[in-house]
Amino acid sequence: MPEFIEITSKDNPLIKFVSNLQSSSKYRIKEGLFVLEGLRICDDAYQNNIKFDKLIVTKDAYNKHKNIIDNFVSISKNCYFLREDLFKKISDTNSPQGIIAVANKPQKNNNILNNGRFIALENIADPSNLGAIARTAEALGIDGIIVSSDCSDPYSPKCLRSSMGTLLRLPIYITDNIMEYIRNNKLRAFACVVEKDATDISTVKFSDGDVILIGNEANGLSEEAKLNSFDCLTISMKGKAESLNAAAAAAIAMWEMVR
Amino acid sequence: MPEFIEITSKDNPLIKFVSNLQSSSKYRIKEGLFVLEGLRICDDAYQNNIKFDKLIVTKDAYNKHKNIIDNFVSISKNCYFLREDLFKKISDTNSPQGIIAVANKPQKNNNILNNGRFIALENIADPSNLGAIARTAEALGIDGIIVSSDCSDPYSPKCLRSSMGTLLRLPIYITDNIMEYIRNNKLRAFACVVEKDATDISTVKFSDGDVILIGNEANGLSEEAKLNSFDCLTISMKGKAESLNAAAAAAIAMWEMVR
Repeated sequence: MPEFIEITSKDNPLIKFVSNLQSSSKYRIKEGLFVLEGLRICDDAYQNNIKFDKLIVTKDAYNKHKNIIDNFVSISKNCYFLREDLFKKISDTNSPQGIIAVANKPQKNNNILNNGRFIALENIADPSNLGAIARTAEALGIDGIIVSSDCSDPYSPKCLRSSMGTLLRLPIYITDNIMEYIRNNKLRAFACVVEKDATDISTVKFSDGDVILIGNEANGLSEEAKLNSFDCLTISMKGKAESLNAAAAAAIAMWEMVR
Repeated sequence: MPEFIEITSKDNPLIKFVSNLQSSSKYRIKEGLFVLEGLRICDDAYQNNIKFDKLIVTKDAYNKHKNIIDNFVSISKNCYFLREDLFKKISDTNSPQGIIAVANKPQKNNNILNNGRFIALENIADPSNLGAIARTAEALGIDGIIVSSDCSDPYSPKCLRSSMGTLLRLPIYITDNIMEYIRNNKLRAFACVVEKDATDISTVKFSDGDVILIGNEANGLSEEAKLNSFDCLTISMKGKAESLNAAAAAAIAMWEMVR
């Protein structure tokens, strides 16, 4: 088991390093690392065999949750005690629990099960939407989530939080070209759109190897995604609301895929 | 058309009055009023024949959106110009547009269409969930939303915002006793639960006069609601996620009701 290193100086480079990882998606990509904050999400990661590069806790938190934190220590390369007031500088929450882990992002997994059922997200901007969609996908037994690289970063603190840790379990496939990725993996794509003349989603017989595409909150799917899909589907709406929220549309679409 | 009254003193009682309405659900109940902030939601209200008790705008906002604001003036009892720096004190947003209306809450409408299809919310705590559920309900053509009085206030700024104005269109029935209300209105209640032995929601034939009950985010529905429902339904889940988020569960449940 690694020894805890004690950090008491506000100028210790670790503080800047973790703050950068918390706030910058570019920095996370460059370093290949992301931050897990709080007992619950760190434990989710531990249960899912994710290894920690760094574990940073306050002494108070350690004394309070010794048993669980000792589990984290056993899978961490380096462990640090950080003073309460310095911990606030690296925390993304208003009332920090005093527990942060820095973990390696999972390796890009290009081997998608092409007999699975998937949800693909194009340019989803709101991290809460991405997290909520992941949570629903995992609950409904969807096999993975394909994420275009212009989506909000699935490894941001906000996104991980709103996914309730499901983003640590659900296979995530990040790609620069979502339609090419779908084509290369021989999946059958259904574009979820709001056009009234599209196929009513409740009439579709989904099968293994299908993927439903959900687009940007304000602009929907790109023309490229619609044109290159096997079919365009719509969730029939009766109200005056211009459209369903992306997370609600995704929930209904995934439900249709598995019901 | 009413004349604009110009407010330049920070001690004008209107400022305290509107701030209280913004921040306190109790105050909104006591006064029977609520606040609409921003051009879009004020226009939604205008389009839905809601009358304004007070209209408060900055001169900048008035000059920028004169035509639309003149519509608002025509349905307002009193109109005020408020200085930019004072407007910030009554705004609920970080970058205020300079447009606020104070409106009467709709009269409690006890006449529910008992041939409609409804969603009923018991003790939903998060205003964003309540707003999101209203948005989905309206889009799917649900006839109204029954809200227990221990839910988050549907007339809070956050709730109205996340509903994208749909809470101004969708009939809302607020009640202290949700099961009694349902019984008195001869609706058939279905409790949405996570228990595995409940009826699979996809096997139910819904009909007019049905209502689906959704419970608190952390604790689900009360025993009373479950015991007094016609049946308990479950959205079958395969993943490790403990449950669907309330808004996702409500979206799937309402979809099953209308598909």
